[in-house]
Amino acid sequence: MKNKVILLNKRPIGKPTLDDFKTVYEEIAAIENGEMLLKTRYVSVDPYLRGRMNDSKSYVPPFELNKPIQSGIIAEVTESKLEAFKKGEFVSGNLDWKEYQISNGEGLLKVNENEANLTPYLGVLGMTGLTAYLGLTEIGLPKEDETLVVSGAAGAVGTIVGQIGKILGCKVVGITGSDEKVALLKSKFRFNYAINYKTTPDLKTAIKNACPNGVDIYFDNVGGAISDAVLANINKFARLPVCGAISLYNDTTASLGPRLQPIILTKSATMRGFIVGDFAAQFPAARAQLALWLQDKKLKYSETVVEGFDAIPQAFIDLFEGKNEGKMIVKV
Amino acid sequence: MKNKVILLNKRPIGKPTLDDFKTVYEEIAAIENGEMLLKTRYVSVDPYLRGRMNDSKSYVPPFELNKPIQSGIIAEVTESKLEAFKKGEFVSGNLDWKEYQISNGEGLLKVNENEANLTPYLGVLGMTGLTAYLGLTEIGLPKEDETLVVSGAAGAVGTIVGQIGKILGCKVVGITGSDEKVALLKSKFRFNYAINYKTTPDLKTAIKNACPNGVDIYFDNVGGAISDAVLANINKFARLPVCGAISLYNDTTASLGPRLQPIILTKSATMRGFIVGDFAAQFPAARAQLALWLQDKKLKYSETVVEGFDAIPQAFIDLFEGKNEGKMIVKV
Repeated sequence: MKNKVILLNKRPIGKPTLDDFKTVYEEIAAIENGEMLLKTRYVSVDPYLRGRMNDSKSYVPPFELNKPIQSGIIAEVTESKLEAFKKGEFVSGNLDWKEYQISNGEGLLKVNENEANLTPYLGVLGMTGLTAYLGLTEIGLPKEDETLVVSGAAGAVGTIVGQIGKILGCKVVGITGSDEKVALLKSKFRFNYAINYKTTPDLKTAIKNACPNGVDIYFDNVGGAISDAVLANINKFARLPVCGAISLYNDTTASLGPRLQPIILTKSATMRGFIVGDFAAQFPAARAQLALWLQDKKLKYSETVVEGFDAIPQAFIDLFEGKNEGKMIVKV
Repeated sequence: MKNKVILLNKRPIGKPTLDDFKTVYEEIAAIENGEMLLKTRYVSVDPYLRGRMNDSKSYVPPFELNKPIQSGIIAEVTESKLEAFKKGEFVSGNLDWKEYQISNGEGLLKVNENEANLTPYLGVLGMTGLTAYLGLTEIGLPKEDETLVVSGAAGAVGTIVGQIGKILGCKVVGITGSDEKVALLKSKFRFNYAINYKTTPDLKTAIKNACPNGVDIYFDNVGGAISDAVLANINKFARLPVCGAISLYNDTTASLGPRLQPIILTKSATMRGFIVGDFAAQFPAARAQLALWLQDKKLKYSETVVEGFDAIPQAFIDLFEGKNEGKMIVKV
C-alpha cells in the first residue's frame, strides 16, 4: 500500500518555507498482533512545532532530518488487532504526518464521539485547552476583578485563555493583529477590550488606557515588543505565564529587547515558562472542567480548517502570518 | 543644637556623584513626651537606594529633593521620654542621614547587644540577611545537590546567599569582580567555585564548565550581561530570584539584552523579583534561623567599615565600583 509522508527536508532558517518539507511515499506493511492501522483525519498545526525544527536542545528533542514531522492528530482506526481499539473508532494523540500509520496504541486517547464532534479534541478539549486552562490557573492565579492581558489573543490558546479569564471574573484585554480579530474577540469571545497592535503606534500607552488599574496577569503567547509594552504596565505582584514566543521562533539570532530584571524586581513579579506537560497530573480535572464549560456554552472556540493532506506545510507556515483564527486544523 | 544632615541635592543621572548630595545644618528641638533623641552610630549604604533617588514610581516612593536620604541605621538613645526606650540603649531601623534625630520609636527595633556586636544588625541579622535567606528559600527553593549560582557574590547579600546554599547542601558558584574576591569566596565563605567576570572573556562557557550539571538556581543581584551568561546555562525548572540589578541601576536609558522569553519558556523556568518586605510575615522565623547559624559559626560575614558621617555619600558611590567586600557600613 502506497502512503504519503511529510518529512523535515531541512531545518528552516528564519521563517519556514515549503522547501523545508518534503513529501515521499512509503509502503505500509500489514499489521501484526498488537497493532492497528490508523487513517489520519484531522491534523493540528501549532507554532511550537517551529522550535522542534531547530537542531537545539529544548524541552522536547528536535525533529530529525528526513524523518516525519509529528503533531496532534485525530485518526480513524481502519484495521485493528488490538483489544482496546476497534475498527471505526477515533483516537487522538501525537502522530506522524502520514496518511496512514501503524500504532500499538501507546500514548493515544480514544475519542468517543461521532465524526461531527472530533475537532475539539485537538483544540479546546485537547492540548490547546489544557494549555490555556492550566497556564492561566496554575501560574496566572487569577482573582476576581483583576486585569488579565492576553497576547496572541485570537489564536487557539489565546481565545480560550480570555474566556476562562472572563468566567473567573477578570477584566480581559486581548492583543491581536487585525481589526477583524479585534471585533471577533469583543463579540464572539466577550473580551472587555482588544487592541490591534499593527495599527497602534504607541502600544504601551494603549495598554495603559485599556487597563486603568494596571495589569495583574499577562498571558504571553508572543514575546518581543508586544510583551515589552505589556510589562511596562504591570502591577506589583503581577504573574506572567510564558506560554509561547511566536514573534521570536523564527529569529536566526537572539532578539534584543529592554532588559526585564528591573521591572521584574521593582514589581515583585513572577515570570514563569511552562509547557502543558509540566501539569500532566492535573489533566483529568482540567479536561473535566473544560468539557463542562463547553457543554454549558460558556466556552466558544474558533477553528480555521483547511483541506487536504498536502496542505499541511502551508497551513503551518500560515500560522506565522496570523492567517488563522483560533485553532488551525488540516482536514485530510 | 547644630546637627548635620545629608540631603538629596539633585537626582543622579547615571552613576551618582558627590554633587548629588548636600550637607546642611539644622537645629534640633528639645524632645517632648513620647519622643527620644537618637545619635546615629552606624549607617548602612545599599545599592537599592539608587532606585529611590530616581523620580519614578517603584516599590517604595522616591526620595524627595532637598530632603534627607534614609537607610538602615543603628542609633544610640541619648535622651528619652518614652517608656520602651532608655538612654544608652541601641535601636535599628530606617532612619534619616542625620547625626541626631528625634523619633517616637515607630518602626524601630531595640538591639540588646553591647557596642561591639551592633553591626550584624545592619547585615547578617538585618535586612541583608533576611533578603538572602528569604529570597533563596522562598523563591530559590534549594534542594540538596542542586547547583546554585550567585552574582554579586562578594556583596553583602551574595556572601550570605552562598553560605546558606552550602548549609542546605547545594553546590555553590559565585560570580564577582576581582581575583581577591574570588579567593575570599572560596576560602572564607566556602563557595565551591568562583569566577572573576572582569577577566573571563567567555563567561557563558566559564559558567558551563563550573556547573557541569547545569544551573538550578540563579540568585541574581546584578542583571545585565552576567545574568545573560547564567541564563544560557539553566536547567529545566530553574528558579531565578531577582534580588537586585546593580549593573542596571545607573542606566539612563533602558539597557538592551537578549530577550528572555525563549529560555524561560523552553526551560519552564521561574523568574521572580522580590523585596524583603514581601516576606515580612516570615521575618521572626528567618531571624531566629540566621542567629542560630551565626552562633554556630556556620555563617560568616564581611564588613567594609568607613569612618565619619561625612563619608556616607562616597561610601554609597563606591558600591557601584565594587569597592566593598560584604556589607558597606559607615561608622559615625
